Amino acid sequence: MNLSDLERQLAFLKEIDRLKSVVRLSPLIDRSRRENSAEHSWHLAMYALVLAQHAAGSVDVTRVVKMLLIHDIVEIDAGDVPFHVPETHVGQDERERLAAERIFGLLPAAQAAEFHDLWREFEAAESDDARFAKALDRFQPMLHNAATDGGTWVECAVTLEQVTTRCQPPIERGSPALWQAALGMAEAHFNKAPPQE
Amino acid sequence: MNLSDLERQLAFLKEIDRLKSVVRLSPLIDRSRRENSAEHSWHLAMYALVLAQHAAGSVDVTRVVKMLLIHDIVEIDAGDVPFHVPETHVGQDERERLAAERIFGLLPAAQAAEFHDLWREFEAAESDDARFAKALDRFQPMLHNAATDGGTWVECAVTLEQVTTRCQPPIERGSPALWQAALGMAEAHFNKAPPQE
Repeated sequence: MNLSDLERQLAFLKEIDRLKSVVRLSPLIDRSRRENSAEHSWHLAMYALVLAQHAAGSVDVTRVVKMLLIHDIVEIDAGDVPFHVPETHVGQDERERLAAERIFGLLPAAQAAEFHDLWREFEAAESDDARFAKALDRFQPMLHNAATDGGTWVECAVTLEQVTTRCQPPIERGSPALWQAALGMAEAHFNKAPPQE
Repeated sequence: MNLSDLERQLAFLKEIDRLKSVVRLSPLIDRSRRENSAEHSWHLAMYALVLAQHAAGSVDVTRVVKMLLIHDIVEIDAGDVPFHVPETHVGQDERERLAAERIFGLLPAAQAAEFHDLWREFEAAESDDARFAKALDRFQPMLHNAATDGGTWVECAVTLEQVTTRCQPPIERGSPALWQAALGMAEAHFNKAPPQE
């Protein structure tokens, strides 16, 4: 079947509706339920628009927003793996690689290649744009945890040292100012919370 | 209190988490639940990235994406008013105007003004960018309705004539190609569906 560009584009846009049903471990700030990956992606795109002045490097906000809008689409096939549950990460790279091929492959070739390249750039976290995008993706759950008496820090029973080991490198590399803010929020939580047994 | 830019920005980003709890009438395509306005905004930003070639005018995709990311934030205070339930629209403009002042006003002044201006431009739907953004906002629910045996067309008992009267002007003005696609989907539904009594 020889599909038109528009037919391919609409098939892709229908398919990615499924990202709204991929549920993350992170709570909404009002604690009414967990966040899904589609609304998380919206929130991160807003973080990029609002916080760009705090990026470490010289970033192209448009590219950062695009990366964040598409960065979790692979989870439609591969699922979300919680950041503080490392044992779920085994094999995830390969699952996500296959997902990217299938899902971006629904689009016309040029768009498929553009999204695929942007997604790989985000994952590699080597360009200034990708480092800032990755920093925001790590920073936002810290803000949610701090605003919900610990969120996944409590649920996954992690220590301040574990949070620092896992979160400082990706956040500080993309935005030293945001790491300072995140560390302040984390210290305020862990210094007042009783230890998790 | 003299808040820093970063403090204001984080307060805004926390506040807009509430958009995830504003529920629209439109169903998800798998019909598991209704869509919320945050994930809807993500989906529309993806529509803009993917469908820009079909815009009527010469559009700046970055501005269209920004408009769509922020276009529903006022619903945090003003609520969503279903497109096919016109009686809910009374007084909505004033509720949204007050909401925009309060919520964008949480940001540093320059960002507050930028978002406020973009939101007003979207609402006015007079620039090429805003017309395309508005067309996508009207097109996406039509695609969801067509993919769910009628969705809000059935729920609100609207006719094909009502759909055409309400949707053709905003969609066709922003994208004649998308209106042709939308009309085809609507006709396929209404020509096969039994009349709603």
